[in-house]
Amino acid sequence: MRSDLKGRDLITTQEWELDAIEETLRLASDVKRRPQAYSDVFKGKSLIMLFFNPSTRTRLSFEIGMTQLGGHAVYMEADSGWIGKGSESIKDTASVMARYGDAIAIRIFPNVTGWRYGESNRVVREFALWADVPVINMECDMFHPCQALADIMTIREKKGDPKGKKFLLSWAYHPNPLPCSVPNSALLISTRFGMDVTLLHPEGFELDEQIMKWARKNVEESGGSLQVTSNVEEAYDGADVVYVKSWGSLKYYGNPQEEKKLRVKFRNWTCNEELMSLTKKDSIFMHCLPIRRNVEATDGVIDGPHSVIYDEAENRLHVQKAVLMLVL
Amino acid sequence: MRSDLKGRDLITTQEWELDAIEETLRLASDVKRRPQAYSDVFKGKSLIMLFFNPSTRTRLSFEIGMTQLGGHAVYMEADSGWIGKGSESIKDTASVMARYGDAIAIRIFPNVTGWRYGESNRVVREFALWADVPVINMECDMFHPCQALADIMTIREKKGDPKGKKFLLSWAYHPNPLPCSVPNSALLISTRFGMDVTLLHPEGFELDEQIMKWARKNVEESGGSLQVTSNVEEAYDGADVVYVKSWGSLKYYGNPQEEKKLRVKFRNWTCNEELMSLTKKDSIFMHCLPIRRNVEATDGVIDGPHSVIYDEAENRLHVQKAVLMLVL
Amino acid sequence: MRSDLKGRDLITTQEWELDAIEETLRLASDVKRRPQAYSDVFKGKSLIMLFFNPSTRTRLSFEIGMTQLGGHAVYMEADSGWIGKGSESIKDTASVMARYGDAIAIRIFPNVTGWRYGESNRVVREFALWADVPVINMECDMFHPCQALADIMTIREKKGDPKGKKFLLSWAYHPNPLPCSVPNSALLISTRFGMDVTLLHPEGFELDEQIMKWARKNVEESGGSLQVTSNVEEAYDGADVVYVKSWGSLKYYGNPQEEKKLRVKFRNWTCNEELMSLTKKDSIFMHCLPIRRNVEATDGVIDGPHSVIYDEAENRLHVQKAVLMLVL
Repeated sequence: MRSDLKGRDLITTQEWELDAIEETLRLASDVKRRPQAYSDVFKGKSLIMLFFNPSTRTRLSFEIGMTQLGGHAVYMEADSGWIGKGSESIKDTASVMARYGDAIAIRIFPNVTGWRYGESNRVVREFALWADVPVINMECDMFHPCQALADIMTIREKKGDPKGKKFLLSWAYHPNPLPCSVPNSALLISTRFGMDVTLLHPEGFELDEQIMKWARKNVEESGGSLQVTSNVEEAYDGADVVYVKSWGSLKYYGNPQEEKKLRVKFRNWTCNEELMSLTKKDSIFMHCLPIRRNVEATDGVIDGPHSVIYDEAENRLHVQKAVLMLVL
Repeated sequence: MRSDLKGRDLITTQEWELDAIEETLRLASDVKRRPQAYSDVFKGKSLIMLFFNPSTRTRLSFEIGMTQLGGHAVYMEADSGWIGKGSESIKDTASVMARYGDAIAIRIFPNVTGWRYGESNRVVREFALWADVPVINMECDMFHPCQALADIMTIREKKGDPKGKKFLLSWAYHPNPLPCSVPNSALLISTRFGMDVTLLHPEGFELDEQIMKWARKNVEESGGSLQVTSNVEEAYDGADVVYVKSWGSLKYYGNPQEEKKLRVKFRNWTCNEELMSLTKKDSIFMHCLPIRRNVEATDGVIDGPHSVIYDEAENRLHVQKAVLMLVL
Repeated sequence: MRSDLKGRDLITTQEWELDAIEETLRLASDVKRRPQAYSDVFKGKSLIMLFFNPSTRTRLSFEIGMTQLGGHAVYMEADSGWIGKGSESIKDTASVMARYGDAIAIRIFPNVTGWRYGESNRVVREFALWADVPVINMECDMFHPCQALADIMTIREKKGDPKGKKFLLSWAYHPNPLPCSVPNSALLISTRFGMDVTLLHPEGFELDEQIMKWARKNVEESGGSLQVTSNVEEAYDGADVVYVKSWGSLKYYGNPQEEKKLRVKFRNWTCNEELMSLTKKDSIFMHCLPIRRNVEATDGVIDGPHSVIYDEAENRLHVQKAVLMLVL
């Protein structure tokens, strides 16, 4: 394994070199094929998991991943007092944690940091600054790098080389304004791997301009393409991969009542079998879960022949084990 | 070990064949005698424990049991949103969990499912339907199979062959209407093993008719007997085993104010030393714990010579380790 | 290792013989130097941790300590119903836990027991009475023995033999009335090791008279000294060790509004660089953490050259591993 990844933080895949990502995906595939071969690598090692927000998949895949590698993950419901308003500074918390644990993983959503876009990400980075052990982002308000790694691993398993494949990232309706971390991360990883990416959303749901800049830079380097549209039928036409996700409008970030007025206009943005029939015959339907059934997508799509959602969820386990082995 | 138990769910002992239960009890005894012999069987394996309701004994015995077998148990406080009202379907939750964990254990009481009798049990069964790993019932609104197994193991240890021994299952007062899972399970396991069973309760506290039917069928097959009475002194007379438990009236299920009016009439239904003096000299006093002291039974009984409550609690550990080894 | 420590409880260092403490510190140093040498000693063993109050350091250091020794720690948020007011007696809870776990560790602050001084300690002792496995005090309202052990270990590492060194234990301001467990424990351990101890606090913040008696007895036996003063400059003069901590006034225990009136008069009691300049050049600044920055001490002190706070926190891990290995 690459020794230069030891000690590295994973805040976003965008900050990892392409060959570091390739190394991670190679290791993840091997871990998936031969889990027993890695059963003792983390004997006596501990991952400290800080959840400012609850979680099912992320918690289970990290905790069980550490167990399968012979180590242990500490599940902590994190206290919002830790991020500056309470009795302890991030410097002190992070410095002490680094004396006990071998790595720190953090989940922190925008509601914890007062809905100022980028502020949750800043907290993760401040932990990383003070902790002299690797810090892994388990989803902040900007990035969900482990989801992105699981996504590209799943695309490769199902569709082979991503290069030149048509990747549709589609907004969907949801009753609540959800974070942008997953669409941001999906956009960054798909453009990184040379896919022909279509970003589909109604007007008003544009992603962060910094993310868009990175995506365009990725396209230049990878030889893929990126188009943004609000034309649903055109966007689905001939897609190899349909990635559905809801997110809130950045225009009304932290202002849910105004945001809702904009969003409800698009409550018919549900991925259904008719739309899926416009895609390639062997296309795949992806979602990071949890999914609001018959709102974001119909049961027919979720349980249908294109759906790979459970395989995608399973790959979280494998990529995270790989990340942990590379950075610890 | 019987390979045909691999992959089996444990929802109620009633659905396990008698020889599967015998196998479980044999293994439990061996685990109790020689714990070291089983210290590595679950290396790298994880049990996902979903607690919709808090727990002391159940959580500790499962979590420590997995540890003693070399594995790990994930403790999750479950979200009532997972059972249909929230953002994720049981199908999705269970399907994904089965990709990460090697088994799933669930505790869910009637308050979580709106006090519709049998509804909590239905949720456990829906998890079992979608998860292709074993699902273990850690107590629903109908059954507590691990308690039943610990109970029959304790009876055997203390009294030898249960066949023909007099088993008194007595209602007791408690300030709150408790679930019927423990009395249902105690009735089913005692009749299954050919005991002469007396079910003692005040009028209005009849158990579910389906449970009573199963109990009568068990009696026919096992050669034991079953009588139901509200005559306290007669019921205690000559008992080998006194099993005390409070439960709420099914007549007023989910209607605590009306139920309370009925229940308070029987607030003197406390097991005391006078009643215990009517039983056999070497009789045993059992309770699943936690027990409301001097309400369900007096300190004199709980701490007295008949009491086997801590041994009974300990046996939870051993039977659950056996169940896990057989189904995983 | 001393076999006579097997099975011992650790409620306060004051009840452990000096040579038992020495043995603990020796083992802690070896564990710190050669952690790998102890990686399998607790295979299959479980520590049950009961937290009536939340915790970062204590939880992480115990949980990760058990993991590093090959065992497991169960994290339980304890229910105040367990201490007599609820459905289960301490006798039943402790007796059952001792059937599952190999040791029990408890944190319980004064707010849980109604702010009657000594009552939280009484609860820990009642658990110890009924549990026939070792009980470790993870901080009650009177003692924090693991902090005391980490403190004296840190002093030895940084200053050599504590005998004759000047130890300043200084009160500091904090917006809330904090428990006396840490100052009590620091006073007891420093006097035990023959240090020249100065206890500095404003009038009204006297420590418990029983603790003071023990401290004076320690001084007699250890050949150190103890003076109490409210003169800040004199107290800092020539100190080798500055130990800063806030605590509430026992005069208004459980009466926060009256207590606040007394405390706010001393809101300028902040340890700063000017005060530190009165101490020896190579003095060390200690605090158990969490610390309210620029209230209890300034950033300049906390992040300055005298500060050993993170080493002190790290030593919690090593001394607790030593304690566990000696008593389990």
